[in-house]
Amino acid sequence: MVKGIGASPGIAVGKAFVLPNWEWDVPDNTIDVADLAAEFERLYEGIHTSKSEIQSIKQEIYEVIGEAESNIFDAHLAILDDPVFMNEIQGIIRRQYKAAEVAVKETIDHFASMFDLLDDPYMKERAADIKDVGNRLIKHLIGTPEVTLPRDANPFVLVARELSPSQLANLNPEHVLGILTLVGGPTSHSAIMARALGIPLVLGLEGKLDQPIHTGDMIALNGETGEVHVNPAHEVVHHFQELKADWQQYQERLQDLIEVPAVTKDGRAVRLDVNISSAKEVPDAFSQGVDGIGLFRTEFLFMDRDHQPDEAEQFEVYREVVQQANGKRVVFRTMDIGGDKRPDFDFALEEEENPVLGYRAIRICLDRPELFKNQLRAILRASHYGPVSLMYPMITSITELRQANAMLEEAKSELAAECLPFDKHLRVGITIEVPSAALIADWLAEEVDFFSIGTNDLIQYTLAVDRMNEQIAHLYEPFHPAVLRLLKQIAEAAHRKGIGIAVCGEMAGDARAVPIWLGLGVYELSMSAGSVLKVKDRVIRSEEKACREWLNTILSCRTNEEVKEHLIQYEKTLIQTRREQNDGAKKL
Amino acid sequence: MVKGIGASPGIAVGKAFVLPNWEWDVPDNTIDVADLAAEFERLYEGIHTSKSEIQSIKQEIYEVIGEAESNIFDAHLAILDDPVFMNEIQGIIRRQYKAAEVAVKETIDHFASMFDLLDDPYMKERAADIKDVGNRLIKHLIGTPEVTLPRDANPFVLVARELSPSQLANLNPEHVLGILTLVGGPTSHSAIMARALGIPLVLGLEGKLDQPIHTGDMIALNGETGEVHVNPAHEVVHHFQELKADWQQYQERLQDLIEVPAVTKDGRAVRLDVNISSAKEVPDAFSQGVDGIGLFRTEFLFMDRDHQPDEAEQFEVYREVVQQANGKRVVFRTMDIGGDKRPDFDFALEEEENPVLGYRAIRICLDRPELFKNQLRAILRASHYGPVSLMYPMITSITELRQANAMLEEAKSELAAECLPFDKHLRVGITIEVPSAALIADWLAEEVDFFSIGTNDLIQYTLAVDRMNEQIAHLYEPFHPAVLRLLKQIAEAAHRKGIGIAVCGEMAGDARAVPIWLGLGVYELSMSAGSVLKVKDRVIRSEEKACREWLNTILSCRTNEEVKEHLIQYEKTLIQTRREQNDGAKKL
Repeated sequence: MVKGIGASPGIAVGKAFVLPNWEWDVPDNTIDVADLAAEFERLYEGIHTSKSEIQSIKQEIYEVIGEAESNIFDAHLAILDDPVFMNEIQGIIRRQYKAAEVAVKETIDHFASMFDLLDDPYMKERAADIKDVGNRLIKHLIGTPEVTLPRDANPFVLVARELSPSQLANLNPEHVLGILTLVGGPTSHSAIMARALGIPLVLGLEGKLDQPIHTGDMIALNGETGEVHVNPAHEVVHHFQELKADWQQYQERLQDLIEVPAVTKDGRAVRLDVNISSAKEVPDAFSQGVDGIGLFRTEFLFMDRDHQPDEAEQFEVYREVVQQANGKRVVFRTMDIGGDKRPDFDFALEEEENPVLGYRAIRICLDRPELFKNQLRAILRASHYGPVSLMYPMITSITELRQANAMLEEAKSELAAECLPFDKHLRVGITIEVPSAALIADWLAEEVDFFSIGTNDLIQYTLAVDRMNEQIAHLYEPFHPAVLRLLKQIAEAAHRKGIGIAVCGEMAGDARAVPIWLGLGVYELSMSAGSVLKVKDRVIRSEEKACREWLNTILSCRTNEEVKEHLIQYEKTLIQTRREQNDGAKKL
Repeated sequence: MVKGIGASPGIAVGKAFVLPNWEWDVPDNTIDVADLAAEFERLYEGIHTSKSEIQSIKQEIYEVIGEAESNIFDAHLAILDDPVFMNEIQGIIRRQYKAAEVAVKETIDHFASMFDLLDDPYMKERAADIKDVGNRLIKHLIGTPEVTLPRDANPFVLVARELSPSQLANLNPEHVLGILTLVGGPTSHSAIMARALGIPLVLGLEGKLDQPIHTGDMIALNGETGEVHVNPAHEVVHHFQELKADWQQYQERLQDLIEVPAVTKDGRAVRLDVNISSAKEVPDAFSQGVDGIGLFRTEFLFMDRDHQPDEAEQFEVYREVVQQANGKRVVFRTMDIGGDKRPDFDFALEEEENPVLGYRAIRICLDRPELFKNQLRAILRASHYGPVSLMYPMITSITELRQANAMLEEAKSELAAECLPFDKHLRVGITIEVPSAALIADWLAEEVDFFSIGTNDLIQYTLAVDRMNEQIAHLYEPFHPAVLRLLKQIAEAAHRKGIGIAVCGEMAGDARAVPIWLGLGVYELSMSAGSVLKVKDRVIRSEEKACREWLNTILSCRTNEEVKEHLIQYEKTLIQTRREQNDGAKKL
């Protein structure tokens, strides 16, 4: 058994198909001077075909996954329009009379070796993009067919060093039982896509395998725990098949919960909201039976266009979301730009050594009052159309909160003077995601209507672990005792002042954490739509009173390992119950 | 008045000299085919001269400032040996018959525009290096003299967009009253060098000046507060001249404190230690009358050489430090490699998006047991020669501490088996610099002999502010209420378990913080040698009892601004006392 990173849940058992690397052999062909024009023609045609292909992949991803993911391919299109890249290729053809594909190959190699020399992560990503685009172009120039996946009757477990989003977009989920990759992180685009497609995925196996996997090897994997078996014993295969059947029954059972209210055995109602990034996501999200939108990430309005949206454009989108929510509450978080989220249009953001600890979110807003006020006005105006709350991200101090609120008051006065309607009693809160805010939560609670705990950032700052960094992925630990203590401190501060308290980080969608929230008295959880039913399942099988007692045990654990041992014990009891219920269902 | 960032303390009043940018006009000369060989000769000669020049700047900085700073210039030397850079230049000469300086200029421009296209911070730094080296090379090729500073009788305030370490190395401190730069951060190499040279420096003025400063403008600046006046009124000049006189008298008075013990008015002795990075620094540091070495940064042993030091090499250095300390205590911190500290030899560190939240310090050590054990053995063996303590950096959990201690036990058993002597009662502690460690300090205190608070990292993680990032420098706030609460929590945990508690971050050397430490009952401060006397001055004029009461006021402040207002009030009282003492001294 080897243990990778479980990045998309589900169980897979089946034969491996190993995907070869996407790199072509290019014979060193030269051309005749007379054919120069024709060769350029061929090059332009190849570029044209490559562009249409990328466009259609982009469109497909846009439809299957979403707008943000589809924008990955804009970088690829940009390369084909990049004069430096194209001049290099044209120069080789013109001066050295080499065939177009040779020129492309040499250009890729030239850039790659230059970037390698520079030894830089951004460069490496860009080099990967250039390579990807270049290889696509070569493919069209030499007419090599796409690497195709076996289309026979037997679905397989796909094994690859790395899967690009475009490769994933080409997969037929019906043929792919599961995926194993050597590299990649749980928050990579590929992982997000695998989860959206419902394909179990384990990644980060590099250096962990005794020997390489070959096509035809038997693989059993658990996309939740990261467990992988290569050519396992019969009993293991059998065990995984059982697990898979359980998993499938569990998934089916979850569908029955859509209309069931999220109430614990002892009657505590828990509000389950969704995190979304665009109005288009509302219908799908609401089909999971959620109570509202606990986090609308407004920064995505700034990410997917070529210009900065003005107040009117923002207002249109926010109003649409509020109207789609149809009377259910929408929490707008003001733009969390910066860090890894950078607009396409010129937003004058400098590159930073440590963007996660840099110029981002409320820091940018307070620094650019006009930008911020436009957004505040747009959100306020949308509040006329349904119940709206507003929250500021990345607040680290009382001073920042007061500055933001002063801007909000200004925006309100302006709207009042302009006779534009808005909800005068709009609730205003903050995301608690920086340790300093958690540490002064008692004081912050006196000046806001609610807290929403952003666990992702809170954990990464508290533990000083970049959650996107694969090398230290094992140290990113939501259940670290220090994190639990901070969560307790935040919840207590909110309770003492009687303000609202919610959670909107990934931990809210982690069913394992449900007893912790119940124990802490946190009854509002906002998560991605795909997690709602799993969390609801956990809620309705829990007893609040028991969770409160259980939490004391958890809070006395001094190590991550002890906490996780307790979580596993708790989970085992539930899995046992689940299996009994499944058996019960079978008998009926 | 404009306010920049005070980066090297002291007062300067005088006429401005504005340093022009270091970029040359290069006429577009071509050469004859027959002269190709001669032109290459000229190029190689220019490279040779540039290299010697960089070497001698490096040597000078090594002598004046230190080894770590001098290594900045290795990157410059590497560029002149870089085949990609040189091929480009040679290609332009060979194929286009352009003069060597034109080829260099075009190469710089080519790289610069390419790097700009890539929009990346690392790239921009590298582009700056290439530009710096390229311009030096052009200077030698066209024979333009170095921009010289006025050498007349009147010293001046140097004003520049930016000063490179090599420009600073060329300054005569006697001619430069102070420095103003538009860009740069307080922790930049240039700032470190200005402090070492004792030149007042204010930086970060970009965008804050109403109009550009011209040579001859009168400037008054305060390198502590960042205050800058351009062509101020006569009274302001007078005030600054008074401040300067006070400052100088204060500096002289400090020298009288070397032999004075650091004891408060009410008899509390405070231990003042130094932070150092090499054995060479010991004599200078000890000349300031310190009690010991509170932090020996062992990672510098890994930074300035072309191979990984083995146990024997490390042991030699550690023993030398212990022997030089001559019976005074030395605290060895195990290697804090990673983040911005990367060895020159191949250490297999990947580039990271957010290195400060990445694979570093104890994370590397626990991941590479052989490397770590070598160091532990070397430190243990040095402990035979004098009082030694050991501490682990970046501990985030009990588990990591236990893993490190298990390695230490292994190292001890090995040494015992090999009959190599070491101190069996060596004190073992941890740096508390990650919020999670502070939050579980009560538990950690049960398993170590002492804590040393690493305020730099603790502040940057608690506030989510990269302290090297100029854009958010105003948010890096040691006196943030949340930071003060964490410090209190750590101190209380240490006191309750009766273990040692020290501070080794920059806050320990910030005289303003002295009343906070006394209030918290923290009596061990370790700092750079240059801060010892200022801190001692503050200690001997303080009363512990009063600080304890004062601390309650400070801890009830809800904003940074309130805390700082109190700090300023406290400081004003002391400055008043200082001025009275100076006046008293004058009368004698």
